[in-house]
Amino acid sequence: MANSIPTDIPHWTALVAEKKQRQLESIPQEWIVTPPSDSTLDVSAFPETCGLLNAREIEITNTPVNVLLEKLALAIVAHQLVNCLTEIFVDRALARAAELDDYLKNTGKVAGPLHGLPISLKDQLCIKGLETTMGYVSWIGQYADRNAVLVDVLIECGAVPFVRTNVPQTLAWPESFNNVFGRTTNPYNRSLTCGGSSGGEGALIALKGSPLGVGSDLGGSIRIPSAFCGLYGLRPSYGRVPHYGARGTLEGQDSVLPVLGPMTSSVVGIKVFMKAVINAKPWLNDPLVVRKKWDEDEYNLVDHGSGEHLCFAIMWDDGVVVPHPPIRRSLEIAKAALQKAGHKVVDWKPIKHRLLGDITRDIWNAASAEEYMITTSVTGEPIIATMELDSADAAVASFRPQNSGITAYQLWQVQKLRQNIRKEYLDHWEATTSETGTGRPVDAIICPAAPFAATPHGKNRSVPVIAE
Amino acid sequence: MANSIPTDIPHWTALVAEKKQRQLESIPQEWIVTPPSDSTLDVSAFPETCGLLNAREIEITNTPVNVLLEKLALAIVAHQLVNCLTEIFVDRALARAAELDDYLKNTGKVAGPLHGLPISLKDQLCIKGLETTMGYVSWIGQYADRNAVLVDVLIECGAVPFVRTNVPQTLAWPESFNNVFGRTTNPYNRSLTCGGSSGGEGALIALKGSPLGVGSDLGGSIRIPSAFCGLYGLRPSYGRVPHYGARGTLEGQDSVLPVLGPMTSSVVGIKVFMKAVINAKPWLNDPLVVRKKWDEDEYNLVDHGSGEHLCFAIMWDDGVVVPHPPIRRSLEIAKAALQKAGHKVVDWKPIKHRLLGDITRDIWNAASAEEYMITTSVTGEPIIATMELDSADAAVASFRPQNSGITAYQLWQVQKLRQNIRKEYLDHWEATTSETGTGRPVDAIICPAAPFAATPHGKNRSVPVIAE
Repeated sequence: MANSIPTDIPHWTALVAEKKQRQLESIPQEWIVTPPSDSTLDVSAFPETCGLLNAREIEITNTPVNVLLEKLALAIVAHQLVNCLTEIFVDRALARAAELDDYLKNTGKVAGPLHGLPISLKDQLCIKGLETTMGYVSWIGQYADRNAVLVDVLIECGAVPFVRTNVPQTLAWPESFNNVFGRTTNPYNRSLTCGGSSGGEGALIALKGSPLGVGSDLGGSIRIPSAFCGLYGLRPSYGRVPHYGARGTLEGQDSVLPVLGPMTSSVVGIKVFMKAVINAKPWLNDPLVVRKKWDEDEYNLVDHGSGEHLCFAIMWDDGVVVPHPPIRRSLEIAKAALQKAGHKVVDWKPIKHRLLGDITRDIWNAASAEEYMITTSVTGEPIIATMELDSADAAVASFRPQNSGITAYQLWQVQKLRQNIRKEYLDHWEATTSETGTGRPVDAIICPAAPFAATPHGKNRSVPVIAE
Repeated sequence: MANSIPTDIPHWTALVAEKKQRQLESIPQEWIVTPPSDSTLDVSAFPETCGLLNAREIEITNTPVNVLLEKLALAIVAHQLVNCLTEIFVDRALARAAELDDYLKNTGKVAGPLHGLPISLKDQLCIKGLETTMGYVSWIGQYADRNAVLVDVLIECGAVPFVRTNVPQTLAWPESFNNVFGRTTNPYNRSLTCGGSSGGEGALIALKGSPLGVGSDLGGSIRIPSAFCGLYGLRPSYGRVPHYGARGTLEGQDSVLPVLGPMTSSVVGIKVFMKAVINAKPWLNDPLVVRKKWDEDEYNLVDHGSGEHLCFAIMWDDGVVVPHPPIRRSLEIAKAALQKAGHKVVDWKPIKHRLLGDITRDIWNAASAEEYMITTSVTGEPIIATMELDSADAAVASFRPQNSGITAYQLWQVQKLRQNIRKEYLDHWEATTSETGTGRPVDAIICPAAPFAATPHGKNRSVPVIAE
């Protein structure tokens, strides 16, 4: 591979070293701490005990600037523990927070429903003037010339973006490890993965370094790190949260679309985010967002206060993989809690999950090899070994970037099959009306985000294993 | 080509002859008329003067059966004039109408918002037990094992499907001519095309053989025949009218999706159809339909009665092709009428229509050749010459099924470009807020459905010409 690199492009490790130096310089030096030794696996309590926050040099007065300063300090501490950040933009965040302080002081009104909320963003959400590398060496130095639509929406709502967070190389892997920023670890046990691809968000928010973050999800990338890091995460339906202007993986693949969504440590945070974004009418700025208003009645149906009894279905397994005992136990706890609250709980009958997985993978793999190879080969950056794995593992082999692509005609045939199986699954769901007792089909399906809890690094095959 | 036909499959002309004989047998013999000679070009007044309807053997009593009988007779007469029908299913339609009569008599209530409305369907909307050939010889004998979702929805609303209507081979051509059913002509001048691909609907409704029909539109297939036949047609947004279970062209192509929509001779018919379909909650039966209720307020904004002044933009041309004088005159008439009604009218500034056309064609052509060849070669059916045209015509050559396909990776790059240009066009639209005087961007853009009125047969290149 090295032979094919144009001589005027630096060797990829030099590019990475230069980028990491710039990242280091973006960190306020007064927040550099002495982290616990590598043998300390659980670092989840460190930020509160490290002295930096206990000293209360930052007085909490609930102004945007002060809230931001506290979160910034926590985020920087978190980063030193679990390596969760990519871009750190202190100056522009503080300037924005100061503007918000002034606005409130001068007008007596908040700037929007997220006034002063520090918000972290997965390293796909372009911000004008900042690089978006998404973990690719070849994207170092690619400065965005405008904000992603969601960034504009959040700023308009009063939020203060302040850091971006780490991802896996290619995004198509449920850990968070790339050649530019290295590996993000799990704050509850640093020998385990935080999950991915929105793993930087998961680790950061679990360490209270951000109250709310934006992840993205194509095949579990919000759900898996939320589960592994003990957070709430929402993978919204297509066309609800604006995605335009975010970078991503398999760009131009229009069939199984990625979505952006919130990750946070409180369930109410999910609602606050979704309501703020939808009330901002994002369809005026993203042609793929559906022109549909926020519907409080629809929300209340599943809110705690409505008093209406719902029917939940639990998918104990998908008919392909039986989850580990801790996962089953968590489902049993959820079942008991729902029943105690007066809701009905039934078993979900999974159908055709092996085929569903095959179809989804076939669509992604239709051209993933070309994209990954083109993106990495320009600098000679290697594909990370845990994403290739040993070819003996059939379940994972299909994710290997070495797979060859297919023709557009072959892709259309797979997509046609998907249309049919999607309809079959909808009919299957609607047919549950006969067993719910509510006059409606099952209101929600509860299922594992992965068949196991967080795994050792390099061992998380939850996406392909579920699919296989 | 003939050498490659398996010997156990009849030569395609035999298959067609057998199908046509069965079609003939589906026509009630008492409605066979003596049509005017071929030299009579304008047959639009023939149904009312042919004696069949004047005789009033069918008494109009407004019961579903009687309304249906009148429409059936008119449809059969229309078919003898302009060859617009494919499947004719008198018995099942009469049985359904009789059920509706009984229902009303027994309950005093209508079965739904379309109670007793005879409805025609483009030859893509599968009906259980009937063939869907869509003009392909190789699809003769393909009996549907269930209804398209929209057919179920319409029947649930009380409508009575009674005939299906003609289309072009491949659907990807704006005339209506195929090897199974032949050519549909324009009732106002039979030497001209009725347009396509929903041309059978256009000709049938123009001859009052159906009060309302369902067409489909991917690149103008509702709009063009509606314009050529003097009808109202609506190409709805994606995800509003259920498409699942309809056959189509380029199946599995998920990027530029076909949509189903109404064609009718009265503007109120458009609303009646859309409201009935959406109120039936089609998202319960089609996974691609957006869960969005009918919004009377949104509708009223553009209804005549709201009294609010709107701002319309007229696209006089697309920056690529200048329409013929009759088209310009019709735009001028529309402008004057809008201004007289108190609305503002501005000029639309087209951007990048040549590129928009290139991108759209590139997506369709990514695998159209394979699909058309596979579908036609099995019986040796030839591709119709007017769809190939002479290769010297560059504007049309790109539609030629002989074009070779591209890889999935290449397709994704085109689709990525499309995402960007779609955003650019949305921004362009939103930016008109500065010139409307309403505080909103332009409420609607008025533009030609084609750069000319109906053309002689084989000469309608409106889709590629617009695109080119």
